[in-house]
Amino acid sequence: MVKVNEHYLELPGNYLFSVVADRVRTFQEEHPEAKIIRLGIGDVTLPLVPAVIEALHQAVSEMGNEETFRGYAPDRGYAFLRETIAECDYRRRGCSISPEEIFISDGAKCDCGNIQEIFSIRNRIAVCDPVYPVYVDSNAMAGRTGQYDPETGKWSDVIYMPCTEGTGFLPELPGKIPDLIYLCFPNNPTGAAMPKERLQEWVDYAIQNGSVILFDAAYEAYIREEGIPHSIYECRGAKTCAIEMRSFSKTAGFTGLRLGYTVVPEELKIQGVKAADLWARRHGTKYNGAPYIVQRAGEAVYSSPGREQVKKQIRYYMDNASLIRQGLSEAGYEVFGGVNAPYIWLKAPRGMNGTAFFEQLLQEAHVVGTPGSGFGPSGELFLRLTAFGNREKTREAVERIRNL
Amino acid sequence: MVKVNEHYLELPGNYLFSVVADRVRTFQEEHPEAKIIRLGIGDVTLPLVPAVIEALHQAVSEMGNEETFRGYAPDRGYAFLRETIAECDYRRRGCSISPEEIFISDGAKCDCGNIQEIFSIRNRIAVCDPVYPVYVDSNAMAGRTGQYDPETGKWSDVIYMPCTEGTGFLPELPGKIPDLIYLCFPNNPTGAAMPKERLQEWVDYAIQNGSVILFDAAYEAYIREEGIPHSIYECRGAKTCAIEMRSFSKTAGFTGLRLGYTVVPEELKIQGVKAADLWARRHGTKYNGAPYIVQRAGEAVYSSPGREQVKKQIRYYMDNASLIRQGLSEAGYEVFGGVNAPYIWLKAPRGMNGTAFFEQLLQEAHVVGTPGSGFGPSGELFLRLTAFGNREKTREAVERIRNL
Repeated sequence: MVKVNEHYLELPGNYLFSVVADRVRTFQEEHPEAKIIRLGIGDVTLPLVPAVIEALHQAVSEMGNEETFRGYAPDRGYAFLRETIAECDYRRRGCSISPEEIFISDGAKCDCGNIQEIFSIRNRIAVCDPVYPVYVDSNAMAGRTGQYDPETGKWSDVIYMPCTEGTGFLPELPGKIPDLIYLCFPNNPTGAAMPKERLQEWVDYAIQNGSVILFDAAYEAYIREEGIPHSIYECRGAKTCAIEMRSFSKTAGFTGLRLGYTVVPEELKIQGVKAADLWARRHGTKYNGAPYIVQRAGEAVYSSPGREQVKKQIRYYMDNASLIRQGLSEAGYEVFGGVNAPYIWLKAPRGMNGTAFFEQLLQEAHVVGTPGSGFGPSGELFLRLTAFGNREKTREAVERIRNL
Repeated sequence: MVKVNEHYLELPGNYLFSVVADRVRTFQEEHPEAKIIRLGIGDVTLPLVPAVIEALHQAVSEMGNEETFRGYAPDRGYAFLRETIAECDYRRRGCSISPEEIFISDGAKCDCGNIQEIFSIRNRIAVCDPVYPVYVDSNAMAGRTGQYDPETGKWSDVIYMPCTEGTGFLPELPGKIPDLIYLCFPNNPTGAAMPKERLQEWVDYAIQNGSVILFDAAYEAYIREEGIPHSIYECRGAKTCAIEMRSFSKTAGFTGLRLGYTVVPEELKIQGVKAADLWARRHGTKYNGAPYIVQRAGEAVYSSPGREQVKKQIRYYMDNASLIRQGLSEAGYEVFGGVNAPYIWLKAPRGMNGTAFFEQLLQEAHVVGTPGSGFGPSGELFLRLTAFGNREKTREAVERIRNL
């Protein structure tokens, strides 16, 4: 008799963003006249830049021609893209990452969800609280997180690292030593950035304790201040203890195109086994490469026009972030993030719960945020807003919240 | 101290096709003058058809325009594609599959590798022998297969169902009852097809024993004979016990574009839990949808011109299959498959081992096949050839083999 993966049954509720989407859909059906502004899910709104569109059209034409048609892509991605990434994202920043250490994929969410597979289920994970739900959920599905306590919203075998106003929204080195440490900076959902010397402490800690850091750098393109590392490999020794995940989603508006990559350095060994070999095996067995046309689109992001066009989009979103920060601060709200990240971490007013505030914003202002509690217990008093909206709508959302 | 997934270490060798690719690369480097003809990996060679190219260009243009730009796709795929599939692939064949039961993905390989996750690791799997390696390897990586015996090439906890000349290359109902049964018909690698009444026996067996059938129908478009089911849902009761995986790779040349789907019927329950809910949860947590532009390309396959153009390509490949079958039969080889499938299962001559024959073909004829032993112990005396080559090259490959 077939049996279900019992760990799936222990998962609380549904995937956060699906739940929010369902709630908003219901509200819209009940109030068809409401002009809802969505600053909830972190989805971009600007179209793909011209350099990317041009590369896509060209690659599509190649696929229609027998001489230039491409079938299965190499498991790890095309050399043209891996070489471009190694050069532009790493060597130019002084990090010696080779194309062979880069694994192209269809997005950082998939990589973040899948990377845990190469590790034993006996490893203990540490996550920031609040945190992007994929890290915990994917480990829970594998049976690595113990029992879920609905009272506290915590799993028994997960080490939670509170990121609160008190800690400046940065995690502190845990006393109980984890095997796998998930870090995402600039952070989703708080928008906090981690200075290089703080990240170096984490690398030193991981090396000292034989831990591996899974570093999600999906938002590095939004860094505007000096002293904030764009890659964990800017830190000494990181190649022996860290895996880095990157995304084109927020950098170049690829949320609907799907492209990302993971760096697994050659020096990273687990019990004497090269982590890169394990990840290569997973790619080879369960994945079949990102589409050729999308990999060409990714390459175009690094071209001279591509780079300029994409920078302009990021500036646009970060101007939205400033607008939200400033508008809500002036109105007396406590606002965090939004300086080196496209996320604003908004404290619910008057000691209100974040979920109640989410409902109030939806019902009275027709503005959608994401309840902070969805990211973990320490997010309970917060709401996440994103800077990815259209300028006018963002401005109007701020106005509506101010007028509550 | 971080620990590796110990199950990865138990995997024998590397992923079959990567190993073959490496061997061919080495040979080509040593013999740069050799004009190698590749009939090994099942990769298509004809370009994408005009209807698909047109749909891609149009969708790309939409992505460059703010009004028509699309960000994250729905987890399960766009409704336009799910509705088209439900209508064209199922309802028109008399199978009542609804769009809600269809989950779009980036390919059948990924789905075949990932589907095991929703089941307990205490389930016992049954596979045909020989078999597409992804089924076994993905279960081995999850720790579901027991110990590997290098002598026999078998895992202790897997039920192998020999598909040999003696069984007409069809599996027989196993005495020891499996929880999960992988079936792929038309078959990769043997090219065998299963008549409807035989498949109905499997469905009845699964219902009777509380097993689930994971049915890989990636090659259904190659069926040319009557009485061969295109979908397992043509069988009575299959919606209560079967999950079906489909691919656009071989149907429409999407190997480099990446698109597939899995059908998880609403009626399929495991210990009272809807399998569709579990798969939806996996999609929601670890996947972010197939690219919009690729989903539009998939839709175009079902348009009237798309359908005609794709049929023509399939005819072209199947003419290759006939050419290989006939040419090698005439030369005295024992040849199977290639009638309802794009694969030819060639018996190595003179009691030779399939791996030795692979080497002989590579070295003396410069033709690449895939050694049958890579698909399982019962494939030891065989070599798989594919019909996906260019006509002239396929003809020349046959000539070269005949002249050995």
